[in-house]
Amino acid sequence: MAAEEPPKMEDLSLSNGKPSPDEDVVDPWNVVGSADTGIDYEKLIKRFGSSKIDQELIDRFEKVTGKPAHHFLRRGLFFSHRDMHSILNQYEAKKPFYLYTGRGPSSSSMHVGHLIPFMFCKWLQDVFDVPLVIQLTDDEKTLWKDLKVEDALKMADENAKDIIAIGFDVSKTFIFSDLTYIGQCPEFYRNMIRIQKCVTFNQVKGIFGFGDSDPIGKIAFPAVQATPCLSTSFPAIFNGKKLPCLIPCAIDQDPYFRMTRDVAPRLGFQKPALIHSTFFPALQGAKTKMSASDPTSTIYLTDTPKQLKNKVNKHAFSGGQTTVEEHRKIGGDCSVDISYQYLTFFLDDDEKLSEIRKNYTSGELLTGELKKILIDTLTPVVQGHQERRAKITDEELRLYMTPRKLNFEC
Amino acid sequence: MAAEEPPKMEDLSLSNGKPSPDEDVVDPWNVVGSADTGIDYEKLIKRFGSSKIDQELIDRFEKVTGKPAHHFLRRGLFFSHRDMHSILNQYEAKKPFYLYTGRGPSSSSMHVGHLIPFMFCKWLQDVFDVPLVIQLTDDEKTLWKDLKVEDALKMADENAKDIIAIGFDVSKTFIFSDLTYIGQCPEFYRNMIRIQKCVTFNQVKGIFGFGDSDPIGKIAFPAVQATPCLSTSFPAIFNGKKLPCLIPCAIDQDPYFRMTRDVAPRLGFQKPALIHSTFFPALQGAKTKMSASDPTSTIYLTDTPKQLKNKVNKHAFSGGQTTVEEHRKIGGDCSVDISYQYLTFFLDDDEKLSEIRKNYTSGELLTGELKKILIDTLTPVVQGHQERRAKITDEELRLYMTPRKLNFEC
Repeated sequence: MAAEEPPKMEDLSLSNGKPSPDEDVVDPWNVVGSADTGIDYEKLIKRFGSSKIDQELIDRFEKVTGKPAHHFLRRGLFFSHRDMHSILNQYEAKKPFYLYTGRGPSSSSMHVGHLIPFMFCKWLQDVFDVPLVIQLTDDEKTLWKDLKVEDALKMADENAKDIIAIGFDVSKTFIFSDLTYIGQCPEFYRNMIRIQKCVTFNQVKGIFGFGDSDPIGKIAFPAVQATPCLSTSFPAIFNGKKLPCLIPCAIDQDPYFRMTRDVAPRLGFQKPALIHSTFFPALQGAKTKMSASDPTSTIYLTDTPKQLKNKVNKHAFSGGQTTVEEHRKIGGDCSVDISYQYLTFFLDDDEKLSEIRKNYTSGELLTGELKKILIDTLTPVVQGHQERRAKITDEELRLYMTPRKLNFEC
Repeated sequence: MAAEEPPKMEDLSLSNGKPSPDEDVVDPWNVVGSADTGIDYEKLIKRFGSSKIDQELIDRFEKVTGKPAHHFLRRGLFFSHRDMHSILNQYEAKKPFYLYTGRGPSSSSMHVGHLIPFMFCKWLQDVFDVPLVIQLTDDEKTLWKDLKVEDALKMADENAKDIIAIGFDVSKTFIFSDLTYIGQCPEFYRNMIRIQKCVTFNQVKGIFGFGDSDPIGKIAFPAVQATPCLSTSFPAIFNGKKLPCLIPCAIDQDPYFRMTRDVAPRLGFQKPALIHSTFFPALQGAKTKMSASDPTSTIYLTDTPKQLKNKVNKHAFSGGQTTVEEHRKIGGDCSVDISYQYLTFFLDDDEKLSEIRKNYTSGELLTGELKKILIDTLTPVVQGHQERRAKITDEELRLYMTPRKLNFEC
């Protein structure tokens, strides 16, 4: 069990933001693949020093929880982990732990890709029946973007509503904005200082590529994202207890937690466990992830059915052939086709997906038909989201965001 | 008036922690004079780019306030300033402003030198009738020393009691520990982030001499000391208004506020005004300031009359001659004599002080006699302090340290 592991050093230098020219760029601010098929995730596991989610882990997951694995796990969309076995040990031993994830509220409109880690978090929360803390890094966005504190706070509220609409249990979920919660909880700031004392400029330079002309706020920020890994940062929930945490996140956030895994044992905490997702690709192709700031690459959670349909038809990169005749003859390439890729995220039915893959690859299914399947799959997801979101009141928002006791004993 | 000044850049490079070999070292962590007479304050004014407190300013001070100048001002113990005329303009125009000072709680016992800035603050508060905020930088001490958060918090409480014992008006004074208040006031953290966005690593490297192997907490800390200069960091007191502030402090703290004066106008605030004191010298001589961690250099506020007497007699550097005969013939040197120097701080009576100076310089007054005068002057100061401090209850401490409305309209 991780609690008994000797606190060994992570190799923090594994990714220093400077991959060699033929390598993919993956850090918290940039994701650029070198190949048309997108990021080489196998290579990334090696470079980051994490572990692959293999069939053995998935089988153990199902055995320990008694639940079938989520299709994100079955299909390798969550593909990498650190110490996931420790968390399963913890669950098996009926010992408490918690989930931590986050979001940088960079735009008031979230896109469909943003749903992925939260959908998975909700599923993990349901399966494990544990508390979840969700950090909105509005301070980070103020520091990195041309954005005022006031605007970042508004975005955090808007994003929180989108997150609530995913269906998190209010009795087990605390959503917080850094710019508000850090000023509501002395224990959080005290843990920030403890972490900031353990990490040097040299280290954040190595891990995040910070330079001498960066503002001191950026340099200190990694400690803010690390702090929720220390359960004592949430005294209302964990009552001062030191509990392990599991972080579901996209793999570009791993550098923060490599740093945290180095620091946590020095402060008497277990290293946070991680479960990493692949990126949700842009409509234009898998070379980069979907970006909230580029409307043509993105399906927003606020898009109308018509906008969604148009974006998929117009922008979704196709793995099909240029003419129907050619397509019937050669078939489509699912490994680069964005409509197919999106279906791997949003179509739960394995049989149906496998049939689509077979038919598209053989050329039986045309690109227009594949796009229609995606549109018919995504439209109810987005519309359902909009309906649930519209019903969220300001009181409900405040309730999720109020530091408070959750339905959890430890 | 400063409010109408164009926001011009301070020369931040004036002191970069690397004075030339024959210069005094003066920064927030080191004070070492190159001459026996101590720090060359005239040179320091030039190096830091501040202004000398001249007779004209003192006269104006007396005229505007209708009060005689404090002996700290009359004797040049507060010797340098920035924008003091703006504050007098503000007072003359009956416009609101506030006082801000602070202390790094490095030891649970404060020494007599620590009283100086606070005694002056109290006098300024009485004269101007304005609110005073006092920052206890327990986060700084955690970062710089081998000190746990818990211990720094305890020291902050102990130091706050000493500060309260100086006699600050509870209806106009807010004392806060960073490790607590930052977690009680979102507006404070939001201002920290605004400041941290404006200051680069290059700048704090230049101003404070930070290096690549320094922890990120140190690198970000200058923003924490800058934040109380923005009145919106205290919404309970200033109700969101932007007010000018005046900072009485020892001149070693000036680098923090040079930085702040660069940032404040960019955030829509007036530059903080400053009034700088000289250092309270160590018993061993004026080459360095009194240090709380070296008992032989220091008279603690907890010393008994006997300890005080012994320390003065044993350790106070004398400007007298080695034999009585020689002393009667040549006379003593007040410019290096520590007992005399301490009297300039603690003996309010100008005539008496002038007589002592005359008699010691002529050789009429012997070193033992001069030391006795100091002992008789300091003992009631320290004993009175101890008596007042003993009466401070935990409730009173909590009251001073609770964020709250003060007796002040703006």
